[in-house]
Amino acid sequence: MDRVLKYGMVGGGEGSFIGDVHRKAIAMDGVCEIVAGNFSRDTVKAQRTGKKLGIQSDRIYQSFEEMAEVESNREDGIDFVVIVTPNKSHYDIAKAFLQKGIHIACDKPLTLEISESEDLARIAKEKDLLFCVTYTNTGCPMVKHAREMVKHGDLGDIIMVMAEYPQDWLINNVSSLGAAQLWRTDPSECNSACVADIGCHIENTVSYITGLKIKSLLANLNKIGEGMQLETNASIMVKYDNGASGMYWACQVALGNKNAIKIRVFGTKGSLEWEGEKPDDMKVSPLGNPIQTLYRGRDKLYPSAAKFSRIPGGHPEGTYEAFANIYLAFARALIKKKTGELLTDEDLDFPSVEKGVVGVKFIHSCLESNENGSVWVNFE
Amino acid sequence: MDRVLKYGMVGGGEGSFIGDVHRKAIAMDGVCEIVAGNFSRDTVKAQRTGKKLGIQSDRIYQSFEEMAEVESNREDGIDFVVIVTPNKSHYDIAKAFLQKGIHIACDKPLTLEISESEDLARIAKEKDLLFCVTYTNTGCPMVKHAREMVKHGDLGDIIMVMAEYPQDWLINNVSSLGAAQLWRTDPSECNSACVADIGCHIENTVSYITGLKIKSLLANLNKIGEGMQLETNASIMVKYDNGASGMYWACQVALGNKNAIKIRVFGTKGSLEWEGEKPDDMKVSPLGNPIQTLYRGRDKLYPSAAKFSRIPGGHPEGTYEAFANIYLAFARALIKKKTGELLTDEDLDFPSVEKGVVGVKFIHSCLESNENGSVWVNFE
Amino acid sequence: MDRVLKYGMVGGGEGSFIGDVHRKAIAMDGVCEIVAGNFSRDTVKAQRTGKKLGIQSDRIYQSFEEMAEVESNREDGIDFVVIVTPNKSHYDIAKAFLQKGIHIACDKPLTLEISESEDLARIAKEKDLLFCVTYTNTGCPMVKHAREMVKHGDLGDIIMVMAEYPQDWLINNVSSLGAAQLWRTDPSECNSACVADIGCHIENTVSYITGLKIKSLLANLNKIGEGMQLETNASIMVKYDNGASGMYWACQVALGNKNAIKIRVFGTKGSLEWEGEKPDDMKVSPLGNPIQTLYRGRDKLYPSAAKFSRIPGGHPEGTYEAFANIYLAFARALIKKKTGELLTDEDLDFPSVEKGVVGVKFIHSCLESNENGSVWVNFE
Amino acid sequence: MDRVLKYGMVGGGEGSFIGDVHRKAIAMDGVCEIVAGNFSRDTVKAQRTGKKLGIQSDRIYQSFEEMAEVESNREDGIDFVVIVTPNKSHYDIAKAFLQKGIHIACDKPLTLEISESEDLARIAKEKDLLFCVTYTNTGCPMVKHAREMVKHGDLGDIIMVMAEYPQDWLINNVSSLGAAQLWRTDPSECNSACVADIGCHIENTVSYITGLKIKSLLANLNKIGEGMQLETNASIMVKYDNGASGMYWACQVALGNKNAIKIRVFGTKGSLEWEGEKPDDMKVSPLGNPIQTLYRGRDKLYPSAAKFSRIPGGHPEGTYEAFANIYLAFARALIKKKTGELLTDEDLDFPSVEKGVVGVKFIHSCLESNENGSVWVNFE
Repeated sequence: MDRVLKYGMVGGGEGSFIGDVHRKAIAMDGVCEIVAGNFSRDTVKAQRTGKKLGIQSDRIYQSFEEMAEVESNREDGIDFVVIVTPNKSHYDIAKAFLQKGIHIACDKPLTLEISESEDLARIAKEKDLLFCVTYTNTGCPMVKHAREMVKHGDLGDIIMVMAEYPQDWLINNVSSLGAAQLWRTDPSECNSACVADIGCHIENTVSYITGLKIKSLLANLNKIGEGMQLETNASIMVKYDNGASGMYWACQVALGNKNAIKIRVFGTKGSLEWEGEKPDDMKVSPLGNPIQTLYRGRDKLYPSAAKFSRIPGGHPEGTYEAFANIYLAFARALIKKKTGELLTDEDLDFPSVEKGVVGVKFIHSCLESNENGSVWVNFE
Repeated sequence: MDRVLKYGMVGGGEGSFIGDVHRKAIAMDGVCEIVAGNFSRDTVKAQRTGKKLGIQSDRIYQSFEEMAEVESNREDGIDFVVIVTPNKSHYDIAKAFLQKGIHIACDKPLTLEISESEDLARIAKEKDLLFCVTYTNTGCPMVKHAREMVKHGDLGDIIMVMAEYPQDWLINNVSSLGAAQLWRTDPSECNSACVADIGCHIENTVSYITGLKIKSLLANLNKIGEGMQLETNASIMVKYDNGASGMYWACQVALGNKNAIKIRVFGTKGSLEWEGEKPDDMKVSPLGNPIQTLYRGRDKLYPSAAKFSRIPGGHPEGTYEAFANIYLAFARALIKKKTGELLTDEDLDFPSVEKGVVGVKFIHSCLESNENGSVWVNFE
Repeated sequence: MDRVLKYGMVGGGEGSFIGDVHRKAIAMDGVCEIVAGNFSRDTVKAQRTGKKLGIQSDRIYQSFEEMAEVESNREDGIDFVVIVTPNKSHYDIAKAFLQKGIHIACDKPLTLEISESEDLARIAKEKDLLFCVTYTNTGCPMVKHAREMVKHGDLGDIIMVMAEYPQDWLINNVSSLGAAQLWRTDPSECNSACVADIGCHIENTVSYITGLKIKSLLANLNKIGEGMQLETNASIMVKYDNGASGMYWACQVALGNKNAIKIRVFGTKGSLEWEGEKPDDMKVSPLGNPIQTLYRGRDKLYPSAAKFSRIPGGHPEGTYEAFANIYLAFARALIKKKTGELLTDEDLDFPSVEKGVVGVKFIHSCLESNENGSVWVNFE
Repeated sequence: MDRVLKYGMVGGGEGSFIGDVHRKAIAMDGVCEIVAGNFSRDTVKAQRTGKKLGIQSDRIYQSFEEMAEVESNREDGIDFVVIVTPNKSHYDIAKAFLQKGIHIACDKPLTLEISESEDLARIAKEKDLLFCVTYTNTGCPMVKHAREMVKHGDLGDIIMVMAEYPQDWLINNVSSLGAAQLWRTDPSECNSACVADIGCHIENTVSYITGLKIKSLLANLNKIGEGMQLETNASIMVKYDNGASGMYWACQVALGNKNAIKIRVFGTKGSLEWEGEKPDDMKVSPLGNPIQTLYRGRDKLYPSAAKFSRIPGGHPEGTYEAFANIYLAFARALIKKKTGELLTDEDLDFPSVEKGVVGVKFIHSCLESNENGSVWVNFE
């Protein structure tokens, strides 16, 4: 990998949790270098962050518009931009960079409105730009192996999906939340808290693993917590296009849970179970045989999963490495694209803008179902 | 406990799994002795079972009607009858014994029809007879402790219940099922497979622990498995009277699961999690404190739970002991009743016929919701 | 099983934990009936216990000598005696009954002194009497399956054994121990606390599973706890006759442990891991394959193990059932013997008096090693 | 942190596993930049690795001696060197750089011979250079919290340590080992396999957590595996200076284990249990209270541990992050040192060269004990 890519970031200033994770994950593989940024609306803070990161002061921007403009005109301008701002601003930012011909990696959910996300998908296609939505779990080797198992028919026909993502941080800390977190429950910033923040991870991870499409869904959303104005608990039922059923539960006030995404897929020939808090292993139950636990780095995985395993089994990989894997796939695809090579499906094994669109639709469908009394709504 | 009770059994002949469990569990405590039975419709088999159990041949009956008649007229007739036949026959059998003034312990679900179960409840009340429906989990000390925690406010207000009961035996063995199991999926014997067999355990255990009443529910039932004529998968959403939400999942075709009932109750001040396959412990997460695991026999339980713990912690108690506890409570209440003492609520800590009625209504509501397109139905 | 055996008990009076467990476990299967007893040295208590158990008053004895004498002369005398007294008295009691031709089931460890246990083994052989030492774990189906796996070569050559049995009750409760427990740490009653009480379970269970003989051992024993006069912590190394190594750890003051016996056996072709607190499952790691978890009642076990599984997988069996299995094997062998049939090795699948002798030698070797500075001692 | 440190690496060429881990871990925090290297004895490979890493060709060296010489003379020479070669060469390499005044981070074990490691410690002290031995586990926040708990008396007096580190890669793969791994079992390269590779991690982690010093030890080492010339299994007993006992087990042929280091520390007031494969949590059992599980990022940790937690609970951190933490502490100390500030104990929270010396002594003592028939040897 001779070419090192250059990137810029919008968001990720002081106090931001996720921007720093993106940067450190990207840094691990040494393929992409940060050279520009619009880290904060606060100029002083933005400068401080940029300086800390060793960025030249003329590439620490005061607005994303300026950054898109200037970087797209530089010889040595950024190859892609990483967008890690609150959800509401994703659309404008992503659009600005797309229009300047700059590739995108954007945090989930993609946008607030469905029309916005569809617009981004349309522009990216027109401009032939890569657009990655950084749904973390798809970077885990065991999640990739799960997908391959389903694809290869190891589970037979899928009949049921049980998926959940409970957390408890909003019951513990609401009053003490810093600004960097508070926007997540602010109706002037978001239309959804729990579904937008974590429910969409369920939707994406299940879709990634099973390839199933949701045909209809029903949601019961609850605003739990004093003064809470958006839902913090979501009970969701889904029906898939192949006739299978699913239950999704996302909750931010479930005491005793940190970040406990868990996906169970049941088929006629086998089942699998994966938990995000121990991402290196996966329970697999083949029909007529003992229950197994597969381990990254120990057991034989499908090649497209195995190639993302970095170190031997029992040496835990986690959140940083999942992000690093997504960026590595994205960067490799981008390098290939820049050298004019054709990109295969395997090259594009990172969450696409189209998946981002589905995620936004999922959030809206949940809201719509709930508003109408938790009734079934079609999901195209 | 000077008085030893005498009991008879209907059902529990050769090949029966659950009848034998009831007998062995009852035998443990030496308080009740089996002296009569109508073990099978097949006379030869019935005699063989009775003889094996050391029952006098004149008390091995050819019909439950005869048994009810004869035993109620004997000086030394049975104090109570244990009914462990397929569900369909519970009503007629229970009614016959109630009418003869004999107390009842009956397997769940209580009856097929709501009207039947209500009828039994009415007669039991009129005749002032004890009637226990043997929902296993309520016999576990940790389930009793969970109930006490909720009752004492340790969890604050309940906001969410997640409960599931997956098994996989119907995907493995359908074609090879013996007659003793096959009736469970036979529409001429049952109106429900999965909900009646295991879903009702969820309903009962959640109700026992939380005391919450279901206000409305919605069910998506699936007949999975070749030639399956009744549902083997049930996704259920509930709303409780206090505003809390619940999700229940019962499945008999979920590969990798044996008998995995799991109840999670989330409150504003704490949460708890109990699993039937490791009944001696319980995860408890108090607000603002580390997550704990409580163990029967090690940690301090509420007295009404602790008194059902038999041996020190780390010496596992299981299914037999749960049944034994239910029968012990039932027998103690019966002895007290026979000596004319007043029964307190604590004396009656075994599942009542009224709980049995609720269980039958639950099954019917799930069927009704599903038949109407998985819509919400009120649950009184 | 037409014949019901009659048994008596020495020990197991009020306040005793283990006597009651033996009785309830025996009662489950309805094969043996208690008809006599010398439950306590205290006559009033002995009568009270006997009466509660429904025993005729003339068979509630004031001394074990009297009981052995009288029962051996009755037409309907007991078939066997269950000895559940403190260890020190096992020898005299067992000898008295053996000499009267009565079969024995005795709690572990068999005796205090090696010569005593050898004496009992000799008499039992001479008199052709069955003698069972009730080492609990050998009654668990998964332990039996483990033994069969080793026997069938599924693990290849055994190379290493890691076994441990930590508890914490002696750190919590010493000052508050009742008399029924206190003798276990009293040097006038015992020569060893931790090794005699739980260490010998490790020795027996490992021996049962692996069939390996210890060639030499080394022990470091510690008297931890205020005023403790016997060891409560034992670190033991062993070398087996086949060249394999082992490490045993027994501890009664290891906070956070209830009764956590765990046996791991490593071979050249596979390994297994069994824990007494979840006795229904076993981890198995076959060379070159994923790690499996086997479950009683779900997965295919070797027939001599499977036949001791009572109920379907996921319905937990525990301590009572393990004891019941030992007594069931013992009773079946006794019935067969009484009918003059020849007993096969499979009939004798309960811990023999010879295993009891090995256990006592193990305790003495640990004491000897420790007294000499934790040096290696030969173990014949 | 204005200053970015520059470092070079010796070892870590193509096929090396651990060199790449060190580089990626260092890269995460952006504090240290790799600018030089002697990656392989094979010049072509060395150049290829260096080029891939973006290193100027004149700083890709053919020998470590040349590298030490040239870098120490450059204005912009490296601040420290990372040594990730096979153990045998650590001494010469470290010495060369120390003598040129360059700080060191060196993989464990420090050297083959005790005298060598003592020599390095002496020179580092004389030259006032920082020397870090990269024992991974000490970089985990929960290990740091464990140390603080002991230090603050939360466990009372330590009475027993149980520590183990089983792996199975040498039973699976010996014949298929690549050169990059094979040296670990080659007696011409090493004097110990299992103890040097993983046993020393036990020694270091226990020492780090408990602060206890080993007074004497005894080891039984076994060469298991066809043609194996060094030990692959080590059973070790230790006695600590405070009177506590310990058992250590290290094994590379224990089927079913990947990299399963587990440390249990038992005290009079509490115990703790930490496992390297799930480094983010820790079981804690306080006397008289329920057993807890503490989670990094969720529960309150001591400040000197908490400051190494990067992301919220439930977002797993693993091996890379542990290394990153060690390097971050080392780099911060180095920056502080370069600015002339005094280093506190807290600044020096990374494994020192003195700890490296103890590790080498530990290996030698185990070998000595085993050679003399697994006898007790004093450990100063």
